[in-house]
Amino acid sequence: VSKPSFEIVFVLFEGVTQLDFTGPHQVLSRVPGAAIRVASVAGTPITADGLVFASLSRLADVERCDVLIVPGGFGTTAAMGDPALLGEIRRLAAGAGFVTSVCTGSLLLAAAGLLEGRRAACHWASRDLLALFGAIPDPGRVVCDGHLITGGGVTAGIDFALTLAAELAGPETAQAIQLSLEYAAAPPFRSGRPETAPAEVLARVEKATARTWPERLAAATAAAARL
Amino acid sequence: VSKPSFEIVFVLFEGVTQLDFTGPHQVLSRVPGAAIRVASVAGTPITADGLVFASLSRLADVERCDVLIVPGGFGTTAAMGDPALLGEIRRLAAGAGFVTSVCTGSLLLAAAGLLEGRRAACHWASRDLLALFGAIPDPGRVVCDGHLITGGGVTAGIDFALTLAAELAGPETAQAIQLSLEYAAAPPFRSGRPETAPAEVLARVEKATARTWPERLAAATAAAARL
Repeated sequence: VSKPSFEIVFVLFEGVTQLDFTGPHQVLSRVPGAAIRVASVAGTPITADGLVFASLSRLADVERCDVLIVPGGFGTTAAMGDPALLGEIRRLAAGAGFVTSVCTGSLLLAAAGLLEGRRAACHWASRDLLALFGAIPDPGRVVCDGHLITGGGVTAGIDFALTLAAELAGPETAQAIQLSLEYAAAPPFRSGRPETAPAEVLARVEKATARTWPERLAAATAAAARL
Repeated sequence: VSKPSFEIVFVLFEGVTQLDFTGPHQVLSRVPGAAIRVASVAGTPITADGLVFASLSRLADVERCDVLIVPGGFGTTAAMGDPALLGEIRRLAAGAGFVTSVCTGSLLLAAAGLLEGRRAACHWASRDLLALFGAIPDPGRVVCDGHLITGGGVTAGIDFALTLAAELAGPETAQAIQLSLEYAAAPPFRSGRPETAPAEVLARVEKATARTWPERLAAATAAAARL
């Protein structure tokens, strides 16, 4: 008996945060029938946080996909100004059953013109930028709006992927994957959200974020003006 | 002011589960002063669950490290019988301040003779095998026994890495990393452990595990006999 097969494409770019896509990739690689491609504009290796990802597809060579997944990262700032990348996202999204993102990947969906009037998640520190594109920032960890499924910052990608796995293959398969990955998180600290982090920890992360904020804000403003 | 620097080495092998090391790598790449190398016996690219990791170091070229991290995966079965891999793990462990593992990586530490009489975590489905090596299987998600820190299955690597980050750089730095990765897990199901998974989900995963169990048991038994 052949299983139903569907194409999942991850879109990589310079400066992507690797856990934004390696987490979901691990979950989705265990969905029966999933054919996964990892692609970038050039198809050449991408270095992400010191890891080198090779054997990528060229986005232009990907004819279509059923599920499009756009991760985020510090490189989102530059990627919002890359017409080739945004064009490929727009093209593949047009034929996909699910258009999705993790972390600041939703800014790229927005910059590609795909989120106007739609609710979307994003990394907490960049979430408000979605409004520049006419999207509705949503603080949810996984946000579903029609065929759009978006996850919050970085590790939210695992929760996002289990949600997507349940859509693709049913909740029992998603639960079996969760068990096989022993996903019963037990962080040693309660510092995962601005609302629960100690004040001095939040101040430290906000200070670090502030250094790259003017550039990110300018890139998002310019990308929104181009729509 | 130069920051204190320390060497972290991840040991890769064919059949490693990528999230076992990509999760911890993401956390530890944000620890100030961390110099991370990803290494394998041959130093050639490793394909893990369809992702290709390139630009690896050769383990023999790694003189020493402060933190040794051994992930697990389906390939643990074959790796337990690889004397070159186990020899490198033993050599690097001898000089390391922290000897660590994620998932079934603890079986490789055990097969290298490093866990006799020590408490260690492991993926729930293989945990009992630790006893063959004279180690004490511990159901904890992150288990610390002296300079040994071991994590449970796959996603436990993120909790493990935050624990390790706190040891290396203090709890405030670990909390800042947790916040930057928005690590406030919210799985859509409660199926992450055998104790909480629905019975039919557990049965399904146990049935899949049973197919590779005889080979894994034989490999562990043989590796334990060689100690």
